[in-house]
Amino acid sequence: MNFSGTTKERTPGSSAPKLKIYTLSGTESVTKNLTVYEYGDDIILVDCGVGFPDMDQYGVNVVIPDFTYILENSHKIRGLFITHGHEDHIGAVPYLLRELNIPIYASKLVQGFLNERVSDRPFKDLAGKIKFHLFSPETEEVTLGVFRVSAFCTNHSVPSSTGLAISTPEGMVLHMADYKIDWTPVLDPPIDLGRISELGRKGVLCLLSDCLNVTTEGYSKSEMDLNDTFSGIFKNGYGRQILITTISSNIARMFQIIDAAIKSGRKIVLAGRSIDQSVSVARRLGYLPFADDVFVKDGDSSKYKQGDLVYIIAGCYGQEGSALARFSRGEHDTVKLVDNALVVFSADPNPPGVEADVEKVMSALTLAGAEVLYSKIQNNLHVSGHGTRGDLTTIAAITKAKFYIPIGGTITRMRAYTNMIGELGIGKDRVFECMEGDCVEFYNGRASKGQKIETKPVFIDNNGTDEVNPIVIRDRDQLSSDGVFVVVIPASQSGQFYPEKVEVVTRGFIYVKASKELMDKSKQFIAKIFDKGMTRSKDWQDLKRKLESRIEDFLRKETGRRPMVIVHSITV
Amino acid sequence: MNFSGTTKERTPGSSAPKLKIYTLSGTESVTKNLTVYEYGDDIILVDCGVGFPDMDQYGVNVVIPDFTYILENSHKIRGLFITHGHEDHIGAVPYLLRELNIPIYASKLVQGFLNERVSDRPFKDLAGKIKFHLFSPETEEVTLGVFRVSAFCTNHSVPSSTGLAISTPEGMVLHMADYKIDWTPVLDPPIDLGRISELGRKGVLCLLSDCLNVTTEGYSKSEMDLNDTFSGIFKNGYGRQILITTISSNIARMFQIIDAAIKSGRKIVLAGRSIDQSVSVARRLGYLPFADDVFVKDGDSSKYKQGDLVYIIAGCYGQEGSALARFSRGEHDTVKLVDNALVVFSADPNPPGVEADVEKVMSALTLAGAEVLYSKIQNNLHVSGHGTRGDLTTIAAITKAKFYIPIGGTITRMRAYTNMIGELGIGKDRVFECMEGDCVEFYNGRASKGQKIETKPVFIDNNGTDEVNPIVIRDRDQLSSDGVFVVVIPASQSGQFYPEKVEVVTRGFIYVKASKELMDKSKQFIAKIFDKGMTRSKDWQDLKRKLESRIEDFLRKETGRRPMVIVHSITV
Repeated sequence: MNFSGTTKERTPGSSAPKLKIYTLSGTESVTKNLTVYEYGDDIILVDCGVGFPDMDQYGVNVVIPDFTYILENSHKIRGLFITHGHEDHIGAVPYLLRELNIPIYASKLVQGFLNERVSDRPFKDLAGKIKFHLFSPETEEVTLGVFRVSAFCTNHSVPSSTGLAISTPEGMVLHMADYKIDWTPVLDPPIDLGRISELGRKGVLCLLSDCLNVTTEGYSKSEMDLNDTFSGIFKNGYGRQILITTISSNIARMFQIIDAAIKSGRKIVLAGRSIDQSVSVARRLGYLPFADDVFVKDGDSSKYKQGDLVYIIAGCYGQEGSALARFSRGEHDTVKLVDNALVVFSADPNPPGVEADVEKVMSALTLAGAEVLYSKIQNNLHVSGHGTRGDLTTIAAITKAKFYIPIGGTITRMRAYTNMIGELGIGKDRVFECMEGDCVEFYNGRASKGQKIETKPVFIDNNGTDEVNPIVIRDRDQLSSDGVFVVVIPASQSGQFYPEKVEVVTRGFIYVKASKELMDKSKQFIAKIFDKGMTRSKDWQDLKRKLESRIEDFLRKETGRRPMVIVHSITV
Repeated sequence: MNFSGTTKERTPGSSAPKLKIYTLSGTESVTKNLTVYEYGDDIILVDCGVGFPDMDQYGVNVVIPDFTYILENSHKIRGLFITHGHEDHIGAVPYLLRELNIPIYASKLVQGFLNERVSDRPFKDLAGKIKFHLFSPETEEVTLGVFRVSAFCTNHSVPSSTGLAISTPEGMVLHMADYKIDWTPVLDPPIDLGRISELGRKGVLCLLSDCLNVTTEGYSKSEMDLNDTFSGIFKNGYGRQILITTISSNIARMFQIIDAAIKSGRKIVLAGRSIDQSVSVARRLGYLPFADDVFVKDGDSSKYKQGDLVYIIAGCYGQEGSALARFSRGEHDTVKLVDNALVVFSADPNPPGVEADVEKVMSALTLAGAEVLYSKIQNNLHVSGHGTRGDLTTIAAITKAKFYIPIGGTITRMRAYTNMIGELGIGKDRVFECMEGDCVEFYNGRASKGQKIETKPVFIDNNGTDEVNPIVIRDRDQLSSDGVFVVVIPASQSGQFYPEKVEVVTRGFIYVKASKELMDKSKQFIAKIFDKGMTRSKDWQDLKRKLESRIEDFLRKETGRRPMVIVHSITV
């Protein structure tokens, strides 16, 4: 194999362009994916997703990639390619487009999802303005600057997922975000291993590969494995109210549910905004070719016998405001739980960080009299969209890439991928484990770590539009733990303080009604500090800091708690 | 079978005593276990543990059972039996003893753990005052009022775990908290199935049984299955720095690690307070019969070649302040990571709610150059202490109990246990799924749900002693999401307000330095409200509420955020 065969030998020099691949966002945190391909004056981007806040990032709705590098190099950006329609790959597109309206290369389905997203607040200003280019395994290769990009079919838990073959002056790079090998997928053709092998035979410089499920042995299961699941559920649940919850973008799963429902004589009710929108887009684009009369409007469901319906309901991760959570609490407007109802969780059984929420919803359903089916007690309710070790080994082996960059997994998964490459007899030094902002440079068939871009997470607040300053989040962290203790000190125009008139306002610290004694003691303590000659100060900021520190110590000693203490002077 | 054979037939009547079993705390939430057995004027308690706060219970360290019913009936309480030495079964004992110093019936090990707990703050006042009675499968039956109680050996992930045979005027009740069937345990004898069968043959009125792992098929694994694990790790890791983390109460696991270490020529370093204390208690009581020179003091470890040591280190759940977390960040005082270190997680691979913390520590270790072994990539690093479906079926079948109360699992697990009993051909109506405070009454061989005790969770704050009022926690929840916005309005003695002198203090809401405009606009808005005739009010509380509501609306419209608004008037 001559990996650099596609590249002319050039004289090295610091000014000669190199191919740079930046994992700008997403690798280590799994979500908010964004990869930058740069060569000279050309940049293309792959994916632009959102991530989800850590537990201590209070009041944050989503986290988006740091666009600083992209905006600083806006003149070089030729376009954005989207691999598939999941939130962690498309969710941050509107935020980017507001800053820089670059062309987007994506499947019909991704375009549909994005159009739906900008059809309403807060992104309505983008409606009709997105510069879409249809990009799929069926479309022509796209040339953007030095890059020539084509798509090939992969399999994942949303239809029309693709891998990218990116031809660069340094050689061919394959970008394979979330994928698995599925020989019997439901709506898609199987992954195009023929094309991938052919690319491998011609020479692949680098493979960027999903690594999320590398620690799971063997090959992944096929979507088709669930085909008998739903007809079985409808048969065993004859006459009963049945609700099935799954992730809204899993159109193939919807197909299986609807197909089995029709054959069992049940009509479909879509409950929950995300499910409704997603099915609406998929039907418009021909992914769900079922007649209109198969669907019953949410509000009309009470007119039918419950045994003649099946609800596809949003909220498989137990989200508090979701249709399923409201249903479980008896708070859903139109769908009411009927005794002996059957609720089926057809979703990832171990989604990170949501176990407690799912358990809460399942418990409420069980207590309300429903039977709940979930992966722990019944097989074949869900298959993952991510390839396991067997799938990942196959792709690594047939691409025969010279270098590897595992993506879409934490560092522990990347390390396991590196070990997997080692077991294939390929040197582990061919694998680059990249953290956010890391760069791999390719030049003359060689690769090395380049200069990292410093990035910071960008927090978007609960209203979905504004950035939240990290200092504000840090303050919320302190407020959440021990509350706030505000001391207001009146002062005269001339700077004379009136410590005997100090007032205290506190919340989230102690229950004031039960703690009059402590409040009185606090006021006395503050007055006493002033007695010791602090009633005048030229430097208010300095005095304020000293007072806050003294009061913090006092409260910690008295209560063991550390509220945020704010001393404020009011001039009267 | 004549289940009521041990009971004399009596005339029923509302005044005739019944046996009442209250699952006062713990069943639905898994943790903070406390069961009440009541008959006439006699009450005995079983277990008294802590629970852990939900994510939105801010500033809460632990949750303890609601002792109200116990304190109201303090004259009836004859004693507290402890089944085993886990936090969720013993952790709340000091809190209860402070209110009511009742006799405690427990194994040597549980006594050791509790004595260690009260040897230091905040429970030092209890040191030496606990009224312990040794209670184990080897000790005599204990008679407390109408109850006669004996212990039998079970198996779990802490040594000397027991089941209780509680003889009552209504019949025999078996209380089997966390257990599994292990024929080759490490420090204990195998579970005493002979005794349990014998009790079953004589007639068991009710079985209270662990149900946590009922959704896992088959029989549980034995502790012995890990015997070759550690010698293998020491062999493969020859010469390398090795750290193993496990839960501190798992003394059998410690035994296996220490035994294998000695045979591999390594000495032991205990890192972390919980591990140190637990091993110290276990050694003192003879559970870990190894010579003193096997152990190297934490501070002396740098004097040894790292290949000659093994660290048993606290923090297997990624706890932020733990020895392992500090080690992973390079912040541990005495233990420093050496290149190519091997860190082994010998613990529950899927502890609820801590996945993100574990991932964080594993990532930090990997990035720092360590190899991390965990259950997903290597078998036999951990076995659970809870029996799976096979174990639970065996116990249910051999006790042949007339009634069943599944404990130690959420309602979804209880329901699965009920279904398991159904599959045994026993009527599902023989199973009582009990939420916290629920009561099952037994009378003349019949059982029914009795009157529930209303309970509330009791929150203990981060300093480990004081209760946190639920209102304070609710305030912290709001503060954590959008911060606080305090408006201070000066007023004269006569009730005249000075709206032009209003001051605003805010934290966790917006970044003030970047939002001068909004702050100015807010002050103008407040002044304007007053312009419209609100500068005087007889009813300050009413005015305050109106102002807060108006300001909340204003801020939500301006920013989309909902900070806690507090209007405070200061008289000058």
